[in-house]
Parts: sequence; C-alpha cells; structure tokens
Amino acid sequence: MSDDPIVAIAGVTGAVGAEFIATMDKRGFRVGKLKALASASSAGKRLTFRGQEIVVEELTADSFADVDIALFSAGSGISRKFSPHAVRAGAVVIDNSSAFRMDGNVPLVIPEINANRIRDHRGIIAVPNCAAITALVPLWPIHKVNRIKRVIVSTYQAASGAGTAAMEELVESTRAQLNGQVYPPKVMRHPYAFNLFSHDSAIDPETGYNGEETKVIHEARKIFEDEKIAVGVTCVRVPVLRAHCEAITFECERPISPTQVRDFLTGAPGVRLVDDRTANYFPMPIDATGNDDVLVGRIRQDLSDPSGHSVSMFVAADQLLKGAALNAVQIAELLPQRAMA
Amino acid sequence: MSDDPIVAIAGVTGAVGAEFIATMDKRGFRVGKLKALASASSAGKRLTFRGQEIVVEELTADSFADVDIALFSAGSGISRKFSPHAVRAGAVVIDNSSAFRMDGNVPLVIPEINANRIRDHRGIIAVPNCAAITALVPLWPIHKVNRIKRVIVSTYQAASGAGTAAMEELVESTRAQLNGQVYPPKVMRHPYAFNLFSHDSAIDPETGYNGEETKVIHEARKIFEDEKIAVGVTCVRVPVLRAHCEAITFECERPISPTQVRDFLTGAPGVRLVDDRTANYFPMPIDATGNDDVLVGRIRQDLSDPSGHSVSMFVAADQLLKGAALNAVQIAELLPQRAMA
Repeated sequence: MSDDPIVAIAGVTGAVGAEFIATMDKRGFRVGKLKALASASSAGKRLTFRGQEIVVEELTADSFADVDIALFSAGSGISRKFSPHAVRAGAVVIDNSSAFRMDGNVPLVIPEINANRIRDHRGIIAVPNCAAITALVPLWPIHKVNRIKRVIVSTYQAASGAGTAAMEELVESTRAQLNGQVYPPKVMRHPYAFNLFSHDSAIDPETGYNGEETKVIHEARKIFEDEKIAVGVTCVRVPVLRAHCEAITFECERPISPTQVRDFLTGAPGVRLVDDRTANYFPMPIDATGNDDVLVGRIRQDLSDPSGHSVSMFVAADQLLKGAALNAVQIAELLPQRAMA
Repeated sequence: MSDDPIVAIAGVTGAVGAEFIATMDKRGFRVGKLKALASASSAGKRLTFRGQEIVVEELTADSFADVDIALFSAGSGISRKFSPHAVRAGAVVIDNSSAFRMDGNVPLVIPEINANRIRDHRGIIAVPNCAAITALVPLWPIHKVNRIKRVIVSTYQAASGAGTAAMEELVESTRAQLNGQVYPPKVMRHPYAFNLFSHDSAIDPETGYNGEETKVIHEARKIFEDEKIAVGVTCVRVPVLRAHCEAITFECERPISPTQVRDFLTGAPGVRLVDDRTANYFPMPIDATGNDDVLVGRIRQDLSDPSGHSVSMFVAADQLLKGAALNAVQIAELLPQRAMA
C-alpha cells in the first residue's frame, strides 16, 4: 500500500460518510485519491475534500480497482454485498456496519483497546457498535487492572445513530410541535419531539433484548477477549442530535474505589474526565459533540453493592466521531503497511 | 372533618398546583370550599374550579383557619415555614415537598403500597419524590412476593420536575436553537435544547450522589419498610416535557423470571403493562403524559446476572400526576375521617 493510499468511502453522503471526510482532513490523514461512493440516487452529487471537488459515483462491484482502503458506512446489507468485491480488488475494508463484527475472521477494533488485532485481518476490519465503543473505551483501563465481571448500562442515544434522516426528523418534528402542527413520524417508529423511546431495533424473542443491546453484549466480550463478562443493557433513543450518553454501573473482581477509577482513567487514551461535583458539571451531549474523547464523570461508589466491588459513572461521546468515523480512521492510520512506512 | 372539606392549595400557580385542581375535578373529589394560595406576587390572579372563579390569595400564617386539608407544593422552604401553621389550625397537610419525608413522625405514602400508614399521621403526610414513586409503584408487587435486595435505576426525567419555568425554558430554548438564536439558560444550570444533563441538585461530597438520587435511595427504604434494600441510582434530566422514564434492574432474594414479573404486575394497582415486543411498543413519555398509571415494559431477564435472580424493565409515569398531584389527592381520598363517612 502506498503512503498516499487511494481511499474509497461507501456511503459518502450519509451522516458518518461526511465525518469520514472531515476526520481524515482534521487528522492530516494522507490520501492519494478519494473515491466518493453512494447509491445511484446520489451519483453526480459534488463534495469537497481538501479544496478539490469530488463527484459522487455509484457504488458497484467494480468500484474498488486500485483502492487501498475502503471505508464502509452504508448499512450492513451494502457491506455484505460490496465489501467482498473490495477485498478481492486488494483493498482493506474498514466496515462501520454490524455485518461482520461477530465473524471470527474479522477483527473488531477499538484502537485504544485492541489495536494489536488489526494485523489479524483478512481484508475486513470491523468498527464496533457506537454504544459499545462509548462504554468500552472508559471501562478498558479499569478492566485491565481489576477485571470487570458485570456491567449494567442504560443508554441515552442520539438521533445520529439512525442517520441524517433521523436527525432531520428530530428537528422538523420538534419545529412542527412548537408551531402547533402534527408531524407523522416517517423515519422513526415513534414521535420524536420531546419524547424518547426504546431503541427501535428488533427484539430477540428469546432474550427480550433488542438488536442494539445484543450488539453491546456480544461485542464487549469479543473486544475485551473475555467470554465471561456479563453485560445487561437498556438502549433508549432520546431527543438529542449527535452524542450518546450512558449511565454505567460495573462490578470488579476485587474491591474498587472511585479514587482508583479516577486514577485509572486520568490520561487514559480516548478518555477525558469531566467530573466537577462542586460546579455540578458532568458529561453532556453538547460538550461531547465534535469532541474526539469519551467524556467521563459522576464517578462514585455504587451504593447498591455494599461489598465495595462496584462503581457507577456517566459518560458521553460523539456518536459520529468516536462512535463511528473517528474509530474507523484511527484503524486506517494503524494499518500495517502504513505503520512500516 | 366534613364530607365536603375545605381544601387549601399552597403553590396553586405552579405546575403541580394546577394538577391538584385538575385531579380533584377529574376524580370527583368533594370540596366544600377551595382556597387558592400562592406567593404575594401571584395574589389576585384568578382561576376556575368547577365553574367557579377563585381568586388567588397570598399564603400567610393565617391562611388555614377552617381548612381541613392543605395540599402543599411550593418547595420545601415554604412547606417548612407554613405547614406548622396549617397543622395548628387543624388541617391535615399533604406535602409534595421533601421537607418532612424522612421525619420519623411523618408517613411517606404511596397509596398503592402503604395506605395503611396514613392513619399514623400527626398532621402531616408526605408525598414521595417523583422519581421514587415511578420506580416503587411497579417494584412493590414484586417485592411483596420475592423480596428485592438490590435495585439499579437510571432516570430520564422531564422538565416538569423543575417546575413550569423549566418547562418553558425547554420550549423556548429549543425554539431559539431551531431559529439559529442563542438562548442563555435562566432556570436550568445547563443548555436544555436537544441536550441532557445530570440532575442539577447538589452533590453529597461524601457519596457523590446528588440530592435527587439520595431521596430515591432513602425513600425506597422508608416506603418499603426495608432498611436493607440497596439502591443505586443515576438521575438525569432529558429534554422531555412532563413524564419521567426509568430503566430499572432489580435483584430478588429468590430466582425470578420475566413471566413471573408480568404476572405480578398484571392488574397491580397503578400499573399498566405496555410491553409489545412485536410492535416494538414500550413505555414512552408521550403515552404516560396525562395517564394515571405507571407504564411498564421491556420486562426481561437481566443477562448480567447469570443466577437468574435479576430482571430489567423500563417504566414511564406522568411526573405531575402519579409523581405528585395524583398521589397527593389519592392520600386525601383516604384520610380516615373521609373513609368513615
């Protein structure tokens, strides 16, 4: 692979697609040529990357000749259909969808946790689910020192996780309600203005957990390489635009104090403490938006566990950045060929 | 006390004050005379109760002559200052503030749980915190059968809990943001439009829990009359107008299944199951708004507890109704003198 790789983005017109471009630009990621790919309906649209106008092309099986790195964020159906073509053409696929995450041949990577797994790839590297990334980045520095046995997570997930159309629906349905108008939901299953609802992925009839929750449970085990970590999670969509929050309670094998957690997280990669009790200032979506770090605060002993093995905290992260595009570009930066350059 | 008691409302111009009136009206609560009390700045305002115009009077130490029942919802400072006067005048105070909740001489009552404690009152009966009521109403039918040892709650609390001005701030700051205008927060500590934040009550420096969370922890023990129930709770304010939601995970002394929980809650007083996995339809603030019941759904085994002693669920309740005004009027309906009538 060249030092200036040819990069293709599949799903370039989506919410994450736009952040792929912005993140590569911001981080000075070297790109020889950018191929902007999307569905036929978006072909011909124009966008700008580093001052150059780029015309969006239709994503086809033949899109990947000469491509070194293919960033996919167009849903798992598109990833399943087109990433084999990209791999056959010699590209490394970094896939933001759920298509291959639990595939034993596909590394599932959060660089702050398991960058070492990148070298195992056979053409595809998967970016974890955004709710999983948001929880796992700040849990890892603790888990490394004092194994986490059990985690209970409640999410406060933004519209961005459901794409640009969902963000627009939140804005437009809220505007309608403020103007006394009725807005029938089009993208989301339920009214979104000043409302919240259980994540609208399908429910597993056996467990009662929805698709999003099931991803968090399984991906935590794979990324931590700990088949025994027990995760309970409730995923909820709230009327916030683009940063996810999570209330997390975790239980360690040995006793753990809030002071220890603060020590483990201070300076940990991808983590920023926002935990000012006097000013009542803690992680918020508006502060996480546009921020690369997972913000962590409300660190305190979990009073429901008198054994002193449990701590609670509240975290926030930009779903489109660390939850998606940033994590993907971080992986691209660590691809072996580039590291050797 | 007469069958048609003289009822005073202290804080009649607030969000809960308005719901006291609406709830008494809706439930056909017999009222001989209604005294509408508020601060001096609201005196002279007019409101309507059962077709009659009532003039708001300034709340003073002398407001309670002849009053049988005094409903207070004007903050704990006002309750502390004026309810002793009401009691001395012979009224029964039903107080929606936190002023007396943990007082050993004051019953803390959710009628569905401990109506029997009403008779212990010495002039004051306290209405629990709204987040506590929302969690405890659906936990009680389970706790009665299979003792709950541990509860972990994450709240999604509406603006209404911070009063009418907070609801207005949510609306107006959202309108401003949609119009591209800056809205400096006046009532809340943080920007509220499309944002969420940790409940802005003061943090206990010893535990790290905020005031709202501490209320839930202590009130659960008092209402369940179980000093050992261990509660961990994270209270979060979300951009929703008037119904609270909560993600609840609880651990019982003996194994418990989602089917058992569903059985215990079916037909339980104050509870309505909204748990349609096929339609992905679960409790939402917009459905809880104006509804007397606590809506309960997402009932499933907690996968983080392999022992099978834990279940998770998601609940929603109208903060101004069951979380405040309705619970108070239910207590008034059960006052001994009325029950004997």
